[in-house]
Amino acid sequence: MSWEDNVRRVTPYVPGEQPGDSERVIKLNTNEMPYPPSPKVDMALKAYDAAALRLYPAADVAPLRDALAARYGFSADEVFVGVGSDDVLSMAFLTFFNSDKPVIFPDITYSFYDVWADVYRIKYEIKPLDKDFRIVKSDYMCENGGIVIANPNAPTGISQAEDISFIEDIVSANPQSVVIVDEAYVDFGGSTALGLVKKYDNILVVRTFSKSRAFAGMRIGFAIGCPKMIKYLNDVKYSVNSYTMNRPAIDLGLASLSDDEYFEKTVNAVIRTREWTKTELRSRGFAVTDSKTNFVFASPSSISAKELFEKLRERGIYVRWWDKDRLRDWLRISVGTDEEMKVLIENIDTITASKG
Amino acid sequence: MSWEDNVRRVTPYVPGEQPGDSERVIKLNTNEMPYPPSPKVDMALKAYDAAALRLYPAADVAPLRDALAARYGFSADEVFVGVGSDDVLSMAFLTFFNSDKPVIFPDITYSFYDVWADVYRIKYEIKPLDKDFRIVKSDYMCENGGIVIANPNAPTGISQAEDISFIEDIVSANPQSVVIVDEAYVDFGGSTALGLVKKYDNILVVRTFSKSRAFAGMRIGFAIGCPKMIKYLNDVKYSVNSYTMNRPAIDLGLASLSDDEYFEKTVNAVIRTREWTKTELRSRGFAVTDSKTNFVFASPSSISAKELFEKLRERGIYVRWWDKDRLRDWLRISVGTDEEMKVLIENIDTITASKG
Repeated sequence: MSWEDNVRRVTPYVPGEQPGDSERVIKLNTNEMPYPPSPKVDMALKAYDAAALRLYPAADVAPLRDALAARYGFSADEVFVGVGSDDVLSMAFLTFFNSDKPVIFPDITYSFYDVWADVYRIKYEIKPLDKDFRIVKSDYMCENGGIVIANPNAPTGISQAEDISFIEDIVSANPQSVVIVDEAYVDFGGSTALGLVKKYDNILVVRTFSKSRAFAGMRIGFAIGCPKMIKYLNDVKYSVNSYTMNRPAIDLGLASLSDDEYFEKTVNAVIRTREWTKTELRSRGFAVTDSKTNFVFASPSSISAKELFEKLRERGIYVRWWDKDRLRDWLRISVGTDEEMKVLIENIDTITASKG
Repeated sequence: MSWEDNVRRVTPYVPGEQPGDSERVIKLNTNEMPYPPSPKVDMALKAYDAAALRLYPAADVAPLRDALAARYGFSADEVFVGVGSDDVLSMAFLTFFNSDKPVIFPDITYSFYDVWADVYRIKYEIKPLDKDFRIVKSDYMCENGGIVIANPNAPTGISQAEDISFIEDIVSANPQSVVIVDEAYVDFGGSTALGLVKKYDNILVVRTFSKSRAFAGMRIGFAIGCPKMIKYLNDVKYSVNSYTMNRPAIDLGLASLSDDEYFEKTVNAVIRTREWTKTELRSRGFAVTDSKTNFVFASPSSISAKELFEKLRERGIYVRWWDKDRLRDWLRISVGTDEEMKVLIENIDTITASKG
């Protein structure tokens, strides 16, 4: 008998590769913004009083929570803040998914969902997307212990809810389950389900500062749901770690949130670059989904996705490729600056030309 | 049937009160350092490049992990870093305590241990300290699913291991269990069990930057254990949240770690003030434990602990009191500056004089 017999054994999530800060690569593999955070963040940082770091942060994250509530038109008790949306989602799985029935989510979606289910010993069942990578609504009308939908979805980029009634139908049909809507990418053109929170007590909408607010390095995510749901989530959070958000995260998060103008300018720049990239790829014979995110999802025709992934990598351009069913013909390419995407397209041309 | 039937219901940990930053109180209730972090932290902050925040941090926390390994004489694969020692301990409970047998820890100790056990549905059994608040070693020689010992202990401040063989006997007698030694306060005069890590594969030593490094607001904790143990811990961490440590935590943690001279100067100042405070309280008839931490644990004779706690609070001096068996005659008082402790003693004199 050894202590190893009592270890929780898991297959962890594998995040995209993070080259050292000094390595000169074009990094289009983890959906970071190509632009820096708001200049107001830099100002707040330069003015920061290091002496304050000796004190614990606000356990309830009050300053940032309240600002988020005001920004999105909710009250403070409808908002939960965590260490990136991964922390928020993990806490939500732990809090809400304690049924004997399986939690359900699509086969192709954010690949952390099944990892959380595994680590917390939650039963789950995957529901295949249709051939166009769209959710089959009727799949979510069965008995279940919870539902998770990424909208827009990853890594396809597809927004399921140009007509948000799609989500509403699932939420209203499942009063016995918490429906998590993961809106990590919604700011780039998706439709939000936030409006449903006032109408239903079983929906939790999860967002992040990592993508649209250029804050992947800061680790801020949040959830919006009915006060009862947020209370349960906080109870579990206070049973895991009272002080999850450090002081700089709270204070710089506030600075970021105070600059809507910069936020919109940079998000719109990414949207324009994304649309340009889609057009360029389509004109080269790629299949390209109608991504509403800060990445494009594309399948090359004259070269395998795997080979293109590897050849790009040799040239210092990192994109993401998965060796998984239904995904291995595709690449997920984060939207960089115009210049970076021009270099990407040039390199694709060079690589595919040498094939022909 | 409602979604509420599947909620994980818990009784959360209640952290010490955090008054707003602008409130003028003498805050001796959450064991923060009375001195700011190293000036090198301030320099790193002022020089910080906000643009870097758009990128994810190092998921493996490599720069800080490696510096910690070097500082304490271990290799990188023997070090785990988390969001305060609470995050590290929580992750360790989740990873290592999956037995049918109960995890054991003292009745009087850090009050988060039973909360983690509850949230993760871990069986536990508490073992009473003796009448002098010391661990009864034979209690830890029974069948168990894990052991947790805070050393020095909280809120008593007592160091169990002036002679570290006390801990070694428990570790060597329990090869079937992980023994967590929580050394949050060790820098203030305790004896560390770090030396046992090279000798035993079933001990995990947990430390924090929150106390001795004046970094409560920064949320940095770490654990040192054998490579196999750290690997298991990382697998679970990567199944919960890949990126727990934000960039400022990693970078400013490095700055803090680079200033041993300041670290020792401020820690020694706290130790001197603690000893002065013990003497003053004892001369006023208080029972005072031999705390080796940055707080004193004291029981007044001419007034109840509860009344003294309340009267101090009215005067803007926050200390900690628990309405719990064996604790309700005692106060835990964090060590502040010399000036703050002088004001504390003066106020105690005024309060007790009005009783006589």
